[in-house]
Amino acid sequence: MFVIITYDIAEAKILNKVRKTLKKYLIWTQNSVFEGEILPGKLHKCVSELENIIDNEEDSIYIYEIKNSKNIQKNIYGIHKNFDDTFI
Amino acid sequence: MFVIITYDIAEAKILNKVRKTLKKYLIWTQNSVFEGEILPGKLHKCVSELENIIDNEEDSIYIYEIKNSKNIQKNIYGIHKNFDDTFI
Repeated sequence: MFVIITYDIAEAKILNKVRKTLKKYLIWTQNSVFEGEILPGKLHKCVSELENIIDNEEDSIYIYEIKNSKNIQKNIYGIHKNFDDTFI
Repeated sequence: MFVIITYDIAEAKILNKVRKTLKKYLIWTQNSVFEGEILPGKLHKCVSELENIIDNEEDSIYIYEIKNSKNIQKNIYGIHKNFDDTFI
């Protein structure tokens, strides 16, 4: 399936850990967005890791699952960023 | 159609204008995310407005269009934010 994961994380230390976790599974495409194809089992693993990292009173993570990537179209305005080479 | 719009905007003044524009059409659900159902004509109008606001060398806006909202599932971890009452 195709997923888009967006996040608002209050603390820099937690933010760093969230990004490190997401980088193992998906592509970092915008400051607060990761996306890509992922198998349900891997997504489940990724979510378990994230749940152990975030502060449930402060942080928020949205996971949008799209069953078939044919059902989604992405249009980019402005620059096309890629943070995958960013050291975190 | 259902859309998710995410953005990275460098300057606060531009960021404010982008949010004000998006608020006319969609729901503000995370710091850098708006989403909701929108008619193609309205989306076209929204995009035209955004193109006139952003700096094409610095900013980026991603628009994910999902033809049928049945094809997307959203899971929330942590807090469920809503910025719609935020004054901008």
